[in-house]
Parts: sequence; structure tokens; C-alpha cells
Amino acid sequence: MSDSAKIISRKESDSKINTQKLMTKIADDSRKASFELSTADSKLKNDALLLISEKIINQKNYIQSENKIDVDNAREKGLSGALVDRLVLNEKRINSMVEGLREITNLNDPVGEVTKMWKRPNGLSVGQMRIPLGVIAIIYESRPNVTADAAGLCLKAGNSVILRGGSEAFNSNQAIGSIISDALKEVGLPEKAVQIVPVTDRNAILEMLKLEEFIDLVIPRGGEGLIRFVVENSLIPVLKHYKGICHVYIDESADIELATSIAVNSKTQRPGVCNAMETLLVNKKIAKKFLPVLEKELNDLGVTIKSCKNTKKILPDTVPAKEEDFYEEYLDLILNIKIVDDLDEAIKHIEKYGSMHTESIVTKSYENARYFIKRVNSSAVMVNASTRFNDGFELGLGAEIGISTSKLHAFGPMGLKELTSKKFIVYGDGQIKE
Amino acid sequence: MSDSAKIISRKESDSKINTQKLMTKIADDSRKASFELSTADSKLKNDALLLISEKIINQKNYIQSENKIDVDNAREKGLSGALVDRLVLNEKRINSMVEGLREITNLNDPVGEVTKMWKRPNGLSVGQMRIPLGVIAIIYESRPNVTADAAGLCLKAGNSVILRGGSEAFNSNQAIGSIISDALKEVGLPEKAVQIVPVTDRNAILEMLKLEEFIDLVIPRGGEGLIRFVVENSLIPVLKHYKGICHVYIDESADIELATSIAVNSKTQRPGVCNAMETLLVNKKIAKKFLPVLEKELNDLGVTIKSCKNTKKILPDTVPAKEEDFYEEYLDLILNIKIVDDLDEAIKHIEKYGSMHTESIVTKSYENARYFIKRVNSSAVMVNASTRFNDGFELGLGAEIGISTSKLHAFGPMGLKELTSKKFIVYGDGQIKE
Repeated sequence: MSDSAKIISRKESDSKINTQKLMTKIADDSRKASFELSTADSKLKNDALLLISEKIINQKNYIQSENKIDVDNAREKGLSGALVDRLVLNEKRINSMVEGLREITNLNDPVGEVTKMWKRPNGLSVGQMRIPLGVIAIIYESRPNVTADAAGLCLKAGNSVILRGGSEAFNSNQAIGSIISDALKEVGLPEKAVQIVPVTDRNAILEMLKLEEFIDLVIPRGGEGLIRFVVENSLIPVLKHYKGICHVYIDESADIELATSIAVNSKTQRPGVCNAMETLLVNKKIAKKFLPVLEKELNDLGVTIKSCKNTKKILPDTVPAKEEDFYEEYLDLILNIKIVDDLDEAIKHIEKYGSMHTESIVTKSYENARYFIKRVNSSAVMVNASTRFNDGFELGLGAEIGISTSKLHAFGPMGLKELTSKKFIVYGDGQIKE
Repeated sequence: MSDSAKIISRKESDSKINTQKLMTKIADDSRKASFELSTADSKLKNDALLLISEKIINQKNYIQSENKIDVDNAREKGLSGALVDRLVLNEKRINSMVEGLREITNLNDPVGEVTKMWKRPNGLSVGQMRIPLGVIAIIYESRPNVTADAAGLCLKAGNSVILRGGSEAFNSNQAIGSIISDALKEVGLPEKAVQIVPVTDRNAILEMLKLEEFIDLVIPRGGEGLIRFVVENSLIPVLKHYKGICHVYIDESADIELATSIAVNSKTQRPGVCNAMETLLVNKKIAKKFLPVLEKELNDLGVTIKSCKNTKKILPDTVPAKEEDFYEEYLDLILNIKIVDDLDEAIKHIEKYGSMHTESIVTKSYENARYFIKRVNSSAVMVNASTRFNDGFELGLGAEIGISTSKLHAFGPMGLKELTSKKFIVYGDGQIKE
């Protein structure tokens, strides 16, 4: 190795050690703060959330001037208009951040709830009590408003949080983070309960993902690349959401008008989100009657239809679908349509191509509705409703921190309860084991 | 590279590809079987469990002759007497395996239970329904009786299971596995719902841990080395149990007799298990009165006491404890004793040295009992009871598949419910999102 190579390598290893030290310190501080936070009264946590909202309003100019640095940098770097737009913290977005925090104060505090209690033959009273998870790390991309939302939800559930936002939003996130810490300190909660990772180095993420003794959960929010990177490198449990390939199945007995309305809403109400439909499955006995009606409405809304062989016979002006299209999350005004022989074929299709996100059946048959609900194991399984209802707010959980498509711990939208765990509590009178 | 090196390397890579193919096939078969099993009636699953027990009894000779091969191999390899003993499937162990399977038939089937249902303002009825996790992989060491226990619990909760036992128990596990598959087939359930990995190669584990698209959960059962290996290499969520460093805290107000009885029971009733106490924390105001009484009882039972500086003043014949002793899971007749100023110091000690397994307070104070229950976030937190009660059977869950010491998904003993997830179910009348 040449001398200069040695120096570089030494520098690299120094920097690695520094990042390691930094992240360990952050995680250790977070863990210590979590002990105090875990027993904080609901009132104190709500006071903190309200003070954060107040401070965000009062220091709007400061946030916006820091945000401007990020936005200018992004423009200079030549980021696309859409990406730059996601970064901007305008008046409306700041207000909605504040509104979000206030809404969290109205949600029930899950911590301390005893979900069940029972008695054992030896007289022990045994129960389960909700407790915070402890320390949650959230790794996310651009949008700086996530910083306040995520911190608010974690705090309300009694968790410390380590936030690592996108490097493009670095200054905005730091500004919001410092306001949050000030507010925590002012109400008497540990200021380290919310920390923003102060470096943009990707190694900081790698180091953080090894700290399983301090951090209880990692939630990556962003594209599939980010999520796979986290899953592959984390020793800490990960709650993840890969993609939403959602299906609607139109049963033989479906009402044509209702089927059309649900299919159209599921596809077009907001096509760029995970709970929008990507593939429509149609029973062959209703296809000839239903598909032309649907096609007209979809055409009016500018939806491109990719059709299976049998659909193509009924809708000759559509594009033929390839097999790989059925694995695609379009997030766009494109829809696969496939004709199936029966409900079982529809379910088999969902099992093969679906992502366990959201599936809906449109039917008048009690038996088929019941079979579909029982047989399909996606995070939300619906009868006669738009797939667009699979989110925390619509299902009644209040705000959500994400949607999990794996079955461990939480499946589907994650609200405050999903940011907690349960411990066993045991009340005895001196019982010993024989 | 020499020609012979090339050949070896080629062989290695062939063997790697073969292992990959084999494990992918097993996992894919398991996933397919899980779809069918997920909706199987409770009666059918119980029939299968009873038939498995029956077949185990009828084919006892076959199991024992296969087991003898393992035992003879182990002796030849020079395994320790204790390790060889764990391998042996004698009459008593086979009966207890059969008994365990029969008990599982008496447990409520959690699948299909709707745990809650509520109504949304738009008229949607939303609920949560328990579903199987899907495919569970269990990686365990020696004891071949785990094969039947684990398969039984997974089956009852509607999950397919891939079992990878210790290589020393290979023939025993294969025999039990083939009996289980026969029984499944005979009652009409998919025989691939229970599969034993047919190779002992450690690469098979590595390949399996990458198959996150087929396998929903990995449970490693064994020493810390095995568990760390699984955590470090798995893309699949892992439920793990590192160690049990359990504490009893004797409060100032404790009844001396009750405190002695609980401390002695927690340490000595079965010292080699994870819910046995490793460290006793004693309030300084009761130490002088309590410790000599306790010492006498512990001496009679052959327990070595490692004492903190202040304990040593009261019990001069004890061994001084070093700081690292407080991190130790002895699993033996050794006990650390430490005197603390108050309840808060006890809790701080538990937070620093504990493993979030089981902690108990002995007290007459309502306030301190309530504070301890609220403040200590271990998997089981007890008042006036022996730590030995932290297991699935004693807490009333029925059988258990392990104890989780991390907070995600399950914390503490895992019974049938912990082998399930919950999906959202939504009943509508044509609702679409505005």
C-alpha cells in the first residue's frame, strides 16, 4: 500500500470509528430517554405535542429559511421539479404539520392499558399491559413534514425516536428537530427523546442498524431500494411495506353499477398510492355485461387497460397484458383486467401475484363474501368497498405511521397501538412454584 | 487456480446451487401448503394431531431404532454424557411427546377469531381477524422431542412449518417428520405442511434465511451462538430469546418469611432455566434482618453467594461479586446479592444489567408494587411471586413455543395466539372514497 493510500485508508477508518461512536451515543441517549418517557403521563405528552405545534407556528420563519437552503441546494443539484416540490415547506404544509400534531393529542394514549386480566388456579392474577416499544428508528426520504408526524406519533406512544431523513431535507429536518427538543425540555420531558441524525453519511445508517441492544424497531419509509437496504443490513427488527398490488374481484352476482363505481374509485381516486387497485379480476359469467360499461368510464378518465386474452375479445381496443404486468405496481392510470372462471381462480391469482396489501370482492352472494373474507389473507380484505379505504385514518386508527405488509407484529396500517408492545403483569400473594 | 482447485471450487458452487434449489423447493411447497392449511377447520387440525399421536405410539419401535442410530453416532463422536442424554427418546419422552400433542387439541383454535369490530361514520364495519402467520421455520439444537411439539403448535395455529433440528438428531427427526406427514395426508391436510430439512449442511440454514418471500417467521431455539447466527443472516423476521437475567427486589416493607421463600424458590426450584433468578436486590433498610435468614437457607441448598461490598459486610463468608457478574446468566446454584438504597436504584440496576425477561418485587407497599409494575418493562413483571412462573403454561397460555425477550410481535411466552397475525376485515355496501 502506498503512503497516500495508507493515509486515506486511515482517514476512512477514523471516520468509520467516529460514525460508530456518534451513532452509539445517539442510540444510548435515546434508550435512556425512553426509560423516562415510558412512564410519562398522557397529559405531559400532550402538553409537549401542543408546545411543539405552538413553537412550529412561532418559528415558521426560521423553519422556512432553513427549508429554503435545502430547496435551493436541490435546484442547484438539478433535482426534478416533483422532487423539489416534495421538499418545500410552504404555509399550507406547515399548517397541516401543526394540525397533525394537535390531532395526535386527541388520540387515546395506549400505554398502561391492561388489555386482559385472568386468574390462575394458584390464585395469581395475570394480565397484559401495553408498554412502549422503547426506541424506534425511522429512515425516510425527502418530505420533511414526516419529521414532525413521526416524532409526534412515537412520543404519544411513549417511545424515543431517532429520525434519519433524506439528505436533501437535512436543514429542514434539523430545524424541526431542534424545535421539538426545545419543547420537550420545556415541559420537562427528556430532550433526547427525539433526535435527528446530524450527518448525511450512509454509513451512519449502517452503523445504526447494528445497534440492536439500544434500538427496538426500525421503520424504513420510502422506495423499495431503501427498504431492501435496511432489511439486508439490520440486526434490529424492521417493519416494512414493500408494495401494494391490490385487486378487486367482480363476482358473478355483482351489481353492475356498484361494481363499476368501486372499480373506478379503487383505480382512479388517487392512482399514485399503495392502496389503489392495479388488477381487476372479473368472473367470466359477468364479463360481457360488465366490461363494456366499465371500459367507457375508464376511457373517460384516461385509464389505459391491459387485458388478458379473454378480456381482449370483449374489449378489442385494449392493450394485451403480459404476464409480468400482473406483478407491476403501476401507481398510475393503468389497469390490468383478467377474466377468471370462478372465485377460487381469483384467489389463486391474488396469492400468486398479490402483495398481501388490499383486496376487495364485489358480490351479492353471502357465501362468496364469507369465503373471500376467510380465505384471502391480505392486510385488509373487503366486501363491497373501495380498496382506497385501507389506511389508518379511514379504518379508524387515527393517524398512521405506515402500512405493514408483513405479518409480524403489525399487518396493515400501524397506528399508536402498533407502536407499543405488551408485557405480562402478575399479582401474587407469595406464590412459589412447586 | 490449479485444475484440482478449480474442480473443488466448481463442486462447491454446484453444491451451493443444489442447496439453494432444495431450500427454495421446500419453502415454496411449504407456502403452498400454508394456503390450504390456513382455512382448515379446527376439527381437521385436531384429527391430524390425534392421528400423529396414535402413529407415534404405534411406530415407537421405528422411532426408537432410528433414534438409536443417532445415539450411537453421538457416543462414537465422543459427545458428553449430558448431550447424549438429551438425544435419547426413551419410553417416557415418547409418551410425553404424545401427551403434549393431545394437550394441544384441547387449546382453543385462534384462527378466525374476530378480536374487535367497530363501525365507521360512512357505515363501513371494520374488524380484525386472526390469521395464521403462514410459514414458520424453526431452527433448534439436539432434543428431538421439539420436532413433535413445535410441529403440533404450528399446525394448530394453521401454519406450515419447516423444521431444522440439530444434526446429531437427524435420523430421529426424519422418523418423526415422516410419521407427521403420513398423518397429515391421511386426514386430508397437505403433507408438506410439516417438513424436516433433509440435509445437515449449515449452508441450508443460510439459504433458508434468505427466503423472505416464502417464509414469514424464523424461531431459533438454542444457545446464544445459534441465535446470533440466525439474527445476523436472516432477511426474515426472527423471534428470539437471548438470555434470562432475572431479578427479585426485596423492598423495605417485605415480609421476611415471604421474601425468603420467593427468593429461594426463584433461585433454586430449577436453577438451569431462563426464568430462574440470577441477582437478588435488597433494600438497605431490610438487609441486616433479611440477609442472614436467607443465607442460612441458601447454604443448606448449596447456593454460592456473590456479594456486593455492603452485602459482604453483613455476610462475611460470601464471595465478592465483580461488576461483570451482574451480566451473567449462571443457570446454576450461584446468586448475586446487591444492596440498594431504594426502589429507584433497584430499577436502574435492572435496566442496566437485566435482559428484560422476568423481575419480581416482594413488598407490602401498595405504592411500590404499583410503581414497580408500571416502571419495569420486562416480559413479565411480578409482585410477591416467584420468577419461575414466567412460562406459557404457568401464565395460562397453554403450551409455549418459546419466550421472546424482544418487544416486537410477542414479548414473553409465546403460545398459539403469538403464532398468528391479524388482518383487517371490512364489510361495506358499496362505499367509495370521496
